[in-house]
Amino acid sequence: MSAVTLLTDFGDRDGYVAAMKGVIASLAPGAAIHDAAHGVPPGDVRAAAWALSQYWRLWPEGTIHVAVVDPGVGTARAALLARAEGRLFLSPDNGLLALVAAESRDFAAFALRADVRRPGGDSATFHGRDVFAYAAGLLAAAGSPEALVAGPAAPVAVPWAGPVRAADGSLHGEVIHVDRFGNAIANLRPCDLPAGAWRLAAGRAEFGRLDRTYGDVPSGAPVAYAGSSGRIEIAVRGGSAQMELDLRRGTPIILRSIL
Amino acid sequence: MSAVTLLTDFGDRDGYVAAMKGVIASLAPGAAIHDAAHGVPPGDVRAAAWALSQYWRLWPEGTIHVAVVDPGVGTARAALLARAEGRLFLSPDNGLLALVAAESRDFAAFALRADVRRPGGDSATFHGRDVFAYAAGLLAAAGSPEALVAGPAAPVAVPWAGPVRAADGSLHGEVIHVDRFGNAIANLRPCDLPAGAWRLAAGRAEFGRLDRTYGDVPSGAPVAYAGSSGRIEIAVRGGSAQMELDLRRGTPIILRSIL
Amino acid sequence: MSAVTLLTDFGDRDGYVAAMKGVIASLAPGAAIHDAAHGVPPGDVRAAAWALSQYWRLWPEGTIHVAVVDPGVGTARAALLARAEGRLFLSPDNGLLALVAAESRDFAAFALRADVRRPGGDSATFHGRDVFAYAAGLLAAAGSPEALVAGPAAPVAVPWAGPVRAADGSLHGEVIHVDRFGNAIANLRPCDLPAGAWRLAAGRAEFGRLDRTYGDVPSGAPVAYAGSSGRIEIAVRGGSAQMELDLRRGTPIILRSIL
Repeated sequence: MSAVTLLTDFGDRDGYVAAMKGVIASLAPGAAIHDAAHGVPPGDVRAAAWALSQYWRLWPEGTIHVAVVDPGVGTARAALLARAEGRLFLSPDNGLLALVAAESRDFAAFALRADVRRPGGDSATFHGRDVFAYAAGLLAAAGSPEALVAGPAAPVAVPWAGPVRAADGSLHGEVIHVDRFGNAIANLRPCDLPAGAWRLAAGRAEFGRLDRTYGDVPSGAPVAYAGSSGRIEIAVRGGSAQMELDLRRGTPIILRSIL
Repeated sequence: MSAVTLLTDFGDRDGYVAAMKGVIASLAPGAAIHDAAHGVPPGDVRAAAWALSQYWRLWPEGTIHVAVVDPGVGTARAALLARAEGRLFLSPDNGLLALVAAESRDFAAFALRADVRRPGGDSATFHGRDVFAYAAGLLAAAGSPEALVAGPAAPVAVPWAGPVRAADGSLHGEVIHVDRFGNAIANLRPCDLPAGAWRLAAGRAEFGRLDRTYGDVPSGAPVAYAGSSGRIEIAVRGGSAQMELDLRRGTPIILRSIL
Repeated sequence: MSAVTLLTDFGDRDGYVAAMKGVIASLAPGAAIHDAAHGVPPGDVRAAAWALSQYWRLWPEGTIHVAVVDPGVGTARAALLARAEGRLFLSPDNGLLALVAAESRDFAAFALRADVRRPGGDSATFHGRDVFAYAAGLLAAAGSPEALVAGPAAPVAVPWAGPVRAADGSLHGEVIHVDRFGNAIANLRPCDLPAGAWRLAAGRAEFGRLDRTYGDVPSGAPVAYAGSSGRIEIAVRGGSAQMELDLRRGTPIILRSIL
């Protein structure tokens, strides 16, 4: 039986996650239900998309990834069932799957049928329980996505910023995520670095080299390195780059060649 | 084998939840142990009772719901094993099961035998580990609640406020829970609304209609709607009704008919 | 198949824990993966060691305890596979296993082979995913620790403070952990109390007796008691000893005999 993962902004106090799990466990009693993360900032679709991108491909084919950060719940936005590299996804159509779509070879999205809804579950504000968990339970129990969808869907386009080459040749990127440690992930990759000497400006810090890891710099010092997601990250050893370097999502990260 | 859910105020840092899980896994190695929520405010029995009410019935019959928010641990308060609509509950006798009792057709509570206690587990301050998880493990392994109880119990009465009809005909309710999103749940139901026009006063906001969902109002605007628990809820789209409308548990919610 | 527990400081928002779970689930699809705790303060190895000490022995023999709080990730510090009383441990060599080593009869540690690394997992900053979860998945699937290790290791010594007897006969201990409730755990045990009368000074409070539990004192009053870990703990009933008595890790706790 397939594994099911749950990503939400429902937190760890109100029982909303447990409601989703109960719906799944009732339909698919033997399913392995795994918490992915539930502390996504309320309504922060981009943070959720980032989190999902950190793990979706690491799970076995057939895994059902449920991801519900859904500020538009109950509106006309579609409910999606998507597939990428053998994994299935259930999510509102709000950009949450944008990074999966961009990263995968074979992303395909479909609209859930309107009648895929928990019997008695007529809420307009908790589709995590009444639509997405219900669909996940059906999938985990029977495994046929085809029966649940009405047809192909074209997910909303929620572009992620890419770096921009300026007239002076500098590359203007930005912070696309700040994690629990206050580490800032940039939309730049090590392959973006020029062959010669360069400077990377990020908030109150400037870097002239990538280190391998935190321990390569003294305690309290800023450090730039090739992060575990393949992007350039900026941290403060033993501290928070977010706080100490004033980095947040959208902060410019500028890369310049120097003599 | 039965599923076991865990609801506590033990948080996510100290290993207390993992201690409970280990006790259960040792007695019932194949049991599926599910986190319900562990971020209930310390000692807040009402918040825990609310959370439990959001999910207990959504799980399959036979599920063992363990709920331990236990400021009176080690005192004379009883340890309960209860049953409602085929689900089992393990909890201190402090009102945590009050909503389950009120909502279910066939709630029955029993006092755990004093000797249902983890061998060597003589703590007076961690019955989550030494009593409730131990009892859950026994139940998950062998399934006979009868062997664990000393006799029927009459749980302490912890009434939940209901709305009160005032002399002028207005209905005086209150906020009974505020969730992670800052949404306020009232002890009023859509069926309490009069047939004609009305006003609902809640903190700094006043409403003249129920909307379906957040997206029915502009960003930043207050919205009242029939919530996913069947009660009237008050939110601020993209914000926190708790903060922006000054709503907290106990804040009056007053419904008046108008001409 | 063995149970796997996960203890980290990765929090509940970024998908890092889900990345670890995916790696394990891919290698050992039927493994039961359990969250221990993920809210350890970032980089706080002592807090993690404390949390681990609360649960490791309560799990069945064969359990694989993964514990990754790893500020030195990517440096020369070893990656450990350890064994204690039939349980296995995967952890960076930074003191995280110090309490397990001190508490167990037969602790033995080994260095993971350098080639125990997720294929394609060349990160220098996320060994939780690329080394420890990968090793856990191999262990959960095949069960042979011997194949994964290069040889015995001598874990770094990270001593935990013990109480010190002063010239005047008083016993000088300290707070070694403060938990989510603000309860302070001392490195003193009930057996350290003298036969006659005594005083225990802790921050702004002084105690002349141990009570059994919180409910033995009035609401808001300080209370000292034999805690569930076998050590003396200090709490404020219905409040936070950390806040109200000004107790933090390292705060002196002084025990004096009196006439």
